[in-house]
Amino acid sequence: MAESKKTTLINQLVEALRCLPSVGPKSAQRMAFHLLQHDRTGAAKLSKVLADSLEHIQHCERCNNFTEAPVCDLCLSPSRDSAVVCVVESPSDLLMMEHTLAYKGMYFVLMGKISPLDGLGPQEIGLPRLLKRVEEGLIKEVIIATNFTVEGEATSHAICEILKPFNLKISRIARGVPVGGELEYIDSGTLAQALIERRTAQF
Amino acid sequence: MAESKKTTLINQLVEALRCLPSVGPKSAQRMAFHLLQHDRTGAAKLSKVLADSLEHIQHCERCNNFTEAPVCDLCLSPSRDSAVVCVVESPSDLLMMEHTLAYKGMYFVLMGKISPLDGLGPQEIGLPRLLKRVEEGLIKEVIIATNFTVEGEATSHAICEILKPFNLKISRIARGVPVGGELEYIDSGTLAQALIERRTAQF
Repeated sequence: MAESKKTTLINQLVEALRCLPSVGPKSAQRMAFHLLQHDRTGAAKLSKVLADSLEHIQHCERCNNFTEAPVCDLCLSPSRDSAVVCVVESPSDLLMMEHTLAYKGMYFVLMGKISPLDGLGPQEIGLPRLLKRVEEGLIKEVIIATNFTVEGEATSHAICEILKPFNLKISRIARGVPVGGELEYIDSGTLAQALIERRTAQF
Repeated sequence: MAESKKTTLINQLVEALRCLPSVGPKSAQRMAFHLLQHDRTGAAKLSKVLADSLEHIQHCERCNNFTEAPVCDLCLSPSRDSAVVCVVESPSDLLMMEHTLAYKGMYFVLMGKISPLDGLGPQEIGLPRLLKRVEEGLIKEVIIATNFTVEGEATSHAICEILKPFNLKISRIARGVPVGGELEYIDSGTLAQALIERRTAQF
């Protein structure tokens, strides 16, 4: 018992692994033992890359996404349409958008969403920086791709309010029945939205 | 697309996090973004403790468990019975035994189990070291606490074979109905074992 309570290096390692999201005490213990017994090379690499990342990775000055350079490759890419900006909540959402292969514009990553209970307002999610970018006058369209959650909708609303004074096209990605979705299994809220936001059929 | 495929530091970090057990590409990405955005202190600590652990943590000369010293605290403890050795598969199993508060002897951690398909035989799981410890003549009883899986049972059998020539009490932890278990929900194999290994009632 005494052994397991002491702050040995092993216990410190287990504790340190708990900084990872959704890793509890049991998982952390399993990870620690796995690394020590079966993957010391991987662990050494993780330790090094983690230190390097903390030193070099920062936010892109334009899109706010993570990058090593002051401005990220995507913002510098000449093949992308710099007149369109898609606003997403997180870097993962940006990657999801990229995976669609359907978007060739720029991004702005909020790195969060408006959530008054967590003390996150428009300032904290970088809206002043988005505003500054719009004020430069090069942006013609803003596509809001925040999540369709309560916070995501509130964030979308706040962005609309801030951008209203500018002569911009502001759009929100569509809600509706997912591709491959069957009406029988869709929740009624989604189906109602799909009905309200119906499009004229193209023949 | 090009951005997400390049070996940027972020992609390296996501890749490095995949050395953790049961962490796939999506979880690794989530972990990387979480650490960079919300817990740089924790990440820095993880990087450091991981490097320290790899440098200092080794196997105890006596019990084979992880430790910073040549011989671990548990093996050096004067309050424990050095005539009894409990053989477990992993450090987690040792901790589970310790949590019972019902055992005050020594341990031997196999750091694995016999698994011919994975190329793990008696040599790989340190049985020669256990044998050497028994040959010193101080051990009077060996309690085998490997898992009740096919590999665990094979390992248990191999240990029995190796220790047969010595004048030792060799025991296996009991199989049976778990504490709080209801017969209705127990599998028939366990119930059959509980019946075979029944104990004379004590009045």
